[in-house]
Amino acid sequence: MSKERAYNFSAGPSMLPLPVLEDVQANLLNYKGCGESVLEMSHRSAEFKEILADAEKSLRDIMNIPDNYKVVFVQGGGTLQFAMVPMNLAVKSGKIDFVVTGQWAKKAYKEAEKLGFDAKVIASSEDDVYTWIPKITKDDIRPDADYVHICFNNTIYGTHYPYIPDTGDIPLVADMSSCILSEEIDVTKFGIIWAGVQKNVAPAGIAVAIIREDLLGKAPADIPTYLDYNVHVEKDSAYNTPNTFSIYVSGEVFKYIKSIGGVAEMHRRDVAKATKLYDYIDNSDYYRCPVNKEDRSLMNVVFVIGDEAVEKKFVSEAKAAGLHNLGGHRTVGGMRASIYNAMPEEGIDALIEFMEKFKAENK
Amino acid sequence: MSKERAYNFSAGPSMLPLPVLEDVQANLLNYKGCGESVLEMSHRSAEFKEILADAEKSLRDIMNIPDNYKVVFVQGGGTLQFAMVPMNLAVKSGKIDFVVTGQWAKKAYKEAEKLGFDAKVIASSEDDVYTWIPKITKDDIRPDADYVHICFNNTIYGTHYPYIPDTGDIPLVADMSSCILSEEIDVTKFGIIWAGVQKNVAPAGIAVAIIREDLLGKAPADIPTYLDYNVHVEKDSAYNTPNTFSIYVSGEVFKYIKSIGGVAEMHRRDVAKATKLYDYIDNSDYYRCPVNKEDRSLMNVVFVIGDEAVEKKFVSEAKAAGLHNLGGHRTVGGMRASIYNAMPEEGIDALIEFMEKFKAENK
Repeated sequence: MSKERAYNFSAGPSMLPLPVLEDVQANLLNYKGCGESVLEMSHRSAEFKEILADAEKSLRDIMNIPDNYKVVFVQGGGTLQFAMVPMNLAVKSGKIDFVVTGQWAKKAYKEAEKLGFDAKVIASSEDDVYTWIPKITKDDIRPDADYVHICFNNTIYGTHYPYIPDTGDIPLVADMSSCILSEEIDVTKFGIIWAGVQKNVAPAGIAVAIIREDLLGKAPADIPTYLDYNVHVEKDSAYNTPNTFSIYVSGEVFKYIKSIGGVAEMHRRDVAKATKLYDYIDNSDYYRCPVNKEDRSLMNVVFVIGDEAVEKKFVSEAKAAGLHNLGGHRTVGGMRASIYNAMPEEGIDALIEFMEKFKAENK
Repeated sequence: MSKERAYNFSAGPSMLPLPVLEDVQANLLNYKGCGESVLEMSHRSAEFKEILADAEKSLRDIMNIPDNYKVVFVQGGGTLQFAMVPMNLAVKSGKIDFVVTGQWAKKAYKEAEKLGFDAKVIASSEDDVYTWIPKITKDDIRPDADYVHICFNNTIYGTHYPYIPDTGDIPLVADMSSCILSEEIDVTKFGIIWAGVQKNVAPAGIAVAIIREDLLGKAPADIPTYLDYNVHVEKDSAYNTPNTFSIYVSGEVFKYIKSIGGVAEMHRRDVAKATKLYDYIDNSDYYRCPVNKEDRSLMNVVFVIGDEAVEKKFVSEAKAAGLHNLGGHRTVGGMRASIYNAMPEEGIDALIEFMEKFKAENK
């Protein structure tokens, strides 16, 4: 990594793999000699259609997505997904069951309520500041619920589902924005998996949704065209002009992951990075991670010192040392190191070295 | 312009100003030495907040946007705007009047109808394949309409409003996707001006909306959060993660336009380019422009030869000669040269030279 580039621990948008960035840069004025930048490319051109088809194919490859699941790239981020999922899926009873494991899961719940659906929180760890993941069983779910929503990795609180809830015949919908492609996932356990790409994949501006096809085509006729998944499916994510550049970079990242050995190898690296950092924190007498051990995230490592002023100093001195965005979410404080796929292990080493130095100077 | 880069006449996404592209490329791994690419930058970081504030300020500057208009950058393109405008504005009578001057105006009308509003076409040139712009007066508008929608430049048909309709107290909403920043506009004549940026500004993935503030805050409580303009206004276009990169490039293009002398100078250049091309076509005994002279677009120049097979040959040989995307929209055929702000005059010269050569070889 170039010495001038920082280690960016932002919760998202965040780092991209350097080889991908360098390739994007090299092709920025003239993509593979075609005479145009991808930034300028018609979404109806043969060149872009190939980029789009390749991106989908690469994602299907590395996630092992079965043929009966459709893949779409949609703008509007998680916030629009919070509306799209109920508008497309809550079409029988209108009942939706939510497991609330953090702010984003709660926002999904609140949005369904705002839209007039019968939304119910069936489990929550809010009383413990979301430091653990509730374990639900089929008995917790209303038998006529249209689907169950979970947030598989909770960016703010540093938690992650250590299991896939068994919801029986009721579709399970998972927001995987902050963990997609960090572990092998059995897609068939889910009705919909969706993820904003800006954390673990590509520049902000699209969410990818992976949808079991029997759930499609049931949305009421009077919802906005853009919010109907089936419109995006039928037009291969190009009903209207898509976010062409973000789709392009996503595809490059998918291919990059494949080139290093796929999601299994990515996961091995992510486990190595996270283990190193959690071990350092757990063995420290200065830093502390408040999260239940078995529910800890590989992607977002939260830790505290216990003194707000010292924590602010930590974040500010870290930035000066080239370790960016280590502050916890503005609603919880403390520190958070988001160590997504693109964070190299050297970034973890640099962070631990800084933590040691800071401890020595401030303890 | 580098010899290797093509002249891209795509209707959008389309060319970007080369100096902007080169600057974006130079900063792609490390934006102004901050250690991060804009592609990786947290939307909550000081660096990005400055980029966002600068982009808005520059747009206000070059468009002379009064303080009582709010500016937001929203994902989802024109298709989402087609839903957002009625959901936010058609809140009294639910009546919306449309002037249908092409496919996009018609889509806006159809979307309002789909959403259950009382949508009415008050004028249309559909019977003449949209080759002219109907002139409406206040008498054509329902007195209790919540707003009137027009499409100010019609990309597919190469037409443009030669006047701003007087709608009295009823807000006028204009889709300016394919002409924004190509002419000086009196913003105060409009309730909302919106534009997808992918034609005349920046890479695809945002629409910019300029909204008179008294129209805000009236949307019903049960619409999707993302579709409420006021949510974007109150959070300065960062309620959720925005399309950071497209906002950044938009800002760079706004500054570029300012640097060359503002929208007035941009317009002078656009008029010079379009005049040169229309004059050539009108004086030709081989090519013909079907559009009513006073309604012609400065941005999208449509022309025909009159023989489908020869027109296909034209488009294909032009591409081989480095003149890309000259085919007319798939629904109308013929040819279309989209000559947005970023198309240099040399591109027009190269096109005319090619047209002469093609005529000599095929007439």
